[in-house]
Amino acid sequence: MSIAQEQLEILKQLGTATIHEAQGQKGALDSGLRPVDPSVRMAGPALTVDCRPDDNLAIHYALTKAKPGDVLVVDAKGFMEAGPWGDLLTLASQKLGIVGLVMNGAVRDANAIIEMGFPVFSRGLSIKGTNKCQPGKVNVPIVIGGVHVNPGDIIVGDRDGLVVVEQSNVEEVIRLSRAREETEDGIRDGIESGISTVALLGLEATLARLGMQ
Amino acid sequence: MSIAQEQLEILKQLGTATIHEAQGQKGALDSGLRPVDPSVRMAGPALTVDCRPDDNLAIHYALTKAKPGDVLVVDAKGFMEAGPWGDLLTLASQKLGIVGLVMNGAVRDANAIIEMGFPVFSRGLSIKGTNKCQPGKVNVPIVIGGVHVNPGDIIVGDRDGLVVVEQSNVEEVIRLSRAREETEDGIRDGIESGISTVALLGLEATLARLGMQ
Amino acid sequence: MSIAQEQLEILKQLGTATIHEAQGQKGALDSGLRPVDPSVRMAGPALTVDCRPDDNLAIHYALTKAKPGDVLVVDAKGFMEAGPWGDLLTLASQKLGIVGLVMNGAVRDANAIIEMGFPVFSRGLSIKGTNKCQPGKVNVPIVIGGVHVNPGDIIVGDRDGLVVVEQSNVEEVIRLSRAREETEDGIRDGIESGISTVALLGLEATLARLGMQ
Amino acid sequence: MSIAQEQLEILKQLGTATIHEAQGQKGALDSGLRPVDPSVRMAGPALTVDCRPDDNLAIHYALTKAKPGDVLVVDAKGFMEAGPWGDLLTLASQKLGIVGLVMNGAVRDANAIIEMGFPVFSRGLSIKGTNKCQPGKVNVPIVIGGVHVNPGDIIVGDRDGLVVVEQSNVEEVIRLSRAREETEDGIRDGIESGISTVALLGLEATLARLGMQ
Amino acid sequence: MSIAQEQLEILKQLGTATIHEAQGQKGALDSGLRPVDPSVRMAGPALTVDCRPDDNLAIHYALTKAKPGDVLVVDAKGFMEAGPWGDLLTLASQKLGIVGLVMNGAVRDANAIIEMGFPVFSRGLSIKGTNKCQPGKVNVPIVIGGVHVNPGDIIVGDRDGLVVVEQSNVEEVIRLSRAREETEDGIRDGIESGISTVALLGLEATLARLGMQ
Amino acid sequence: MSIAQEQLEILKQLGTATIHEAQGQKGALDSGLRPVDPSVRMAGPALTVDCRPDDNLAIHYALTKAKPGDVLVVDAKGFMEAGPWGDLLTLASQKLGIVGLVMNGAVRDANAIIEMGFPVFSRGLSIKGTNKCQPGKVNVPIVIGGVHVNPGDIIVGDRDGLVVVEQSNVEEVIRLSRAREETEDGIRDGIESGISTVALLGLEATLARLGMQ
Repeated sequence: MSIAQEQLEILKQLGTATIHEAQGQKGALDSGLRPVDPSVRMAGPALTVDCRPDDNLAIHYALTKAKPGDVLVVDAKGFMEAGPWGDLLTLASQKLGIVGLVMNGAVRDANAIIEMGFPVFSRGLSIKGTNKCQPGKVNVPIVIGGVHVNPGDIIVGDRDGLVVVEQSNVEEVIRLSRAREETEDGIRDGIESGISTVALLGLEATLARLGMQ
Repeated sequence: MSIAQEQLEILKQLGTATIHEAQGQKGALDSGLRPVDPSVRMAGPALTVDCRPDDNLAIHYALTKAKPGDVLVVDAKGFMEAGPWGDLLTLASQKLGIVGLVMNGAVRDANAIIEMGFPVFSRGLSIKGTNKCQPGKVNVPIVIGGVHVNPGDIIVGDRDGLVVVEQSNVEEVIRLSRAREETEDGIRDGIESGISTVALLGLEATLARLGMQ
Repeated sequence: MSIAQEQLEILKQLGTATIHEAQGQKGALDSGLRPVDPSVRMAGPALTVDCRPDDNLAIHYALTKAKPGDVLVVDAKGFMEAGPWGDLLTLASQKLGIVGLVMNGAVRDANAIIEMGFPVFSRGLSIKGTNKCQPGKVNVPIVIGGVHVNPGDIIVGDRDGLVVVEQSNVEEVIRLSRAREETEDGIRDGIESGISTVALLGLEATLARLGMQ
Repeated sequence: MSIAQEQLEILKQLGTATIHEAQGQKGALDSGLRPVDPSVRMAGPALTVDCRPDDNLAIHYALTKAKPGDVLVVDAKGFMEAGPWGDLLTLASQKLGIVGLVMNGAVRDANAIIEMGFPVFSRGLSIKGTNKCQPGKVNVPIVIGGVHVNPGDIIVGDRDGLVVVEQSNVEEVIRLSRAREETEDGIRDGIESGISTVALLGLEATLARLGMQ
Repeated sequence: MSIAQEQLEILKQLGTATIHEAQGQKGALDSGLRPVDPSVRMAGPALTVDCRPDDNLAIHYALTKAKPGDVLVVDAKGFMEAGPWGDLLTLASQKLGIVGLVMNGAVRDANAIIEMGFPVFSRGLSIKGTNKCQPGKVNVPIVIGGVHVNPGDIIVGDRDGLVVVEQSNVEEVIRLSRAREETEDGIRDGIESGISTVALLGLEATLARLGMQ
Repeated sequence: MSIAQEQLEILKQLGTATIHEAQGQKGALDSGLRPVDPSVRMAGPALTVDCRPDDNLAIHYALTKAKPGDVLVVDAKGFMEAGPWGDLLTLASQKLGIVGLVMNGAVRDANAIIEMGFPVFSRGLSIKGTNKCQPGKVNVPIVIGGVHVNPGDIIVGDRDGLVVVEQSNVEEVIRLSRAREETEDGIRDGIESGISTVALLGLEATLARLGMQ
């Protein structure tokens, strides 16, 4: 099954926090994975890469499998003292139509990455280079940020973080996210009218039961 | 006792580092609590909240107790894998005149928080939602960032971090901070004139005693 | 031996990641040392300081030894709950022609530091002040960020991090960095022409040997 | 499919490091999960529990689903400031024939746990209690320690750490582990005879290629 | 008010986890403070010390204020790269009748400390020495491990961790702890009879409400 | 220059904390490097190894260069999710007369290592295996635990941690350590006689100057 570009745009606009709630508080990567440029928004199917902590051979290999629109999701084992991604891989990825990167580890050439406008999420920056000699796997299920990611799962990222949506759930997640947004718009109207969030969310009974009054 | 808005403005302009020094190197929260938008400045009396790591019921409850000018100070136990604060609570807080948030934990909807211009200090961002079913306490003494905070203590925050000032000390702290600023202005003049900081701060004797020459 | 200003400018433009690669993946400080203002670029010989975690006497002492162009490299033992550097030391340093600071610890007055345009690399920010009473050493070999730094070693810093170059290697490192940049320009041209990085970097044999096809 | 007790005993004796190698370097939980008593050995099918960071209601619920021989595998979200497991749950588990616990978080009553001889693996100890009011899920797939665990997967634990084996792989893993042990016995004999590990493992060619001689 | 030795013995036997629950889940220090020898049990009134991260002058000063039975509670600001406590201070403390130490930082001479049977709780071990030249305060309120400790508060420690009890609460806490132990004995009997903890703790209604059945 | 076995025995008995003080508070590795078996004592000249975070080829290579009495000092870049050392390398090392290991990373087969009585210091345990295909260097200067180690430097380790002594300083360090021990014995006698450590260490003047009385 393929996800339409329009749906990906909608996911980007909905944002990670809303999507996470809409799909039942599932699929959020851990809070240590952050955008190099916090203003980016990214969405696309995962091209997964399982590689060694200081070797990016498998990433180069993965590029040969990439399709336009893919998000590279690379498990470099959380190792912070190597930056297996830089400006050349960014350029090659943009040329191939790859729309972003999630790196369980560090990256380098942050200035270039920001200037080139390529969304990158990582645990930090490191100038330390890597080798190109160790095996790795592409398009296999991986665990990253505490979440199980299958190839083709949709990855959405923004300033708040990253969330994974299964392809078969995209339509439903969009529907639920929009319903949630409508509910939130109603709450916003209520707040503007001066109604408390306790009343708007119906929390009086819970507060009473817990003796919070 | 109430602190005049004018005094709070002065505290914001003095800045956290100067205030911390002026009150005898006391009251600084730990360095892991950082502003979501580093350009903000915040000051106001603490409305303290003691809540569970993944439940924001007590925060909604706290809003019902808030007075204009309050700073919400929430101990969510440093848990990073939930964001108990987002855009709706920000909107409701602004409507109530709350002037900022300190969260011992994570928040979400960072884009909206920055756009809305609401000062938020936290340990990071997380899109993971929370429940609204567990008890909590409002306006009780709490420990946050290694500092004991009583309800009504004045919280000041900026790019450098956060400092707590007891209400009864505000006047004295402002006086001492200004004295300190005057001293620092004198030192600045001295530096501009080419005098060493060793001479300006009178450190020659100490250096001599320690054999540093 | 002295390094010409022109060479330092070249090192700044080459950037830390390229230099690190060019000198054989050596000399990178760990990824936790980050610029307060990520847009800065810095290069100069190290004026090393070995001080105590909450005392900046040795830093004031070091300023009396500083020469224009120096980069202060201070080992405050990684302690995060004190900021032994602020706006006054920044002003004094600029007056003396010091061109930047590396602090194994925290700093404060970040707003002023950014406004003054002084490059500072640290592990974070802390408003907590320090004493001025403990001994320290200036211009001795130190270990910082996992790297052995001798006085006079050239320190280069930018958004990606920090790298140390021995004075006697500067010329060679520049030569190798430029060669590397030329190679990378060739690869960029190749990428623009649609050639894969696997082909451009000659990784086919390795991939074949590892069964990645 | 059910795993015979005899097979579980064999897995315990093989040990986690050997099993991890034998199944292709897969299934190891991260190094932060450690035994409360390092001398224990544990093996059994996972009874998975997905619960909140400070609430153990779902653990009590899980006990009602437990079968003799089960290992409880609880994702408490890595939260360290609560101990949702103690001596009463240990006693109840032993009564039910549960053979061990993996806790992504902390436990308490460590003295009692050690005296009772119940294998517990956690990220540390905390005396802080939990509530019993929040929902959770039992026997669902979870991610713990960076590994995807399905209900019924075999969990093996010892001083070195924890490894997960899929039920359908147990027989093959035992066969491969034993083959590996035989190979290692051969290497041990070689070492005792004074042959280098380089020769025994056939590493000469690699060393020569890399110029290490 | 003074606490009888008998009461301290009772607190030691009750243990930290039970006391923490009995006093309403309050007073637990964070999980990073651990006993050097996990088999120790300790209880006594706090002699608090606020000192610098690498200076133990204030600890020597504190000994001159110590009374038999005191527990030294030292805030060394969590700094791990200095060990301001060793065998000489242990010997001096035992001579004075001090019954234990809580160190927010590291200690050294662990072999001697264990042989001498002196209970020490710290964040780890460090051989790095300290100076004896900086000011500090004795018998002032401090925050340690996230808890506000007043001089004279009772500190109880064992393998699980540390808990603080206000002097005026000791009698009540003992009463509530014993009541809790009696309840737990009843639950133990129930478990031995084969009753589920869900039934023994009356959790059926909560589980039903949450749809866990 | 060669260090006599007798001198190494003396260093082991002096212990790391005393040696560190005696040589002027230099040479201590950071507090995160801990013995797998805390009861061990180790001393010998460093055989340094600079290897990749998940590859132990260079360790096998180093064994071919080892001399009886050597301590292997391996920089695996602090990576915790691989255990490049286990029982086979332990056996081979013992056969060669190697007397211990310092691993900047993790090890596995801890049960075997303890039974075999081989001193190992690491940052933790990991069952995850490594490759044998990447380059490394043997007997080069390395930085480990924040300390610069040259090949042949003497490494001393015990429960408290690790300290490095330059070969040319061994005699002097032993002399100073013994002088220090004699001083400490005098202090012990003073303590036993009931004299305060303030008096024994001559701290009265400092305390008076700081107003601590």
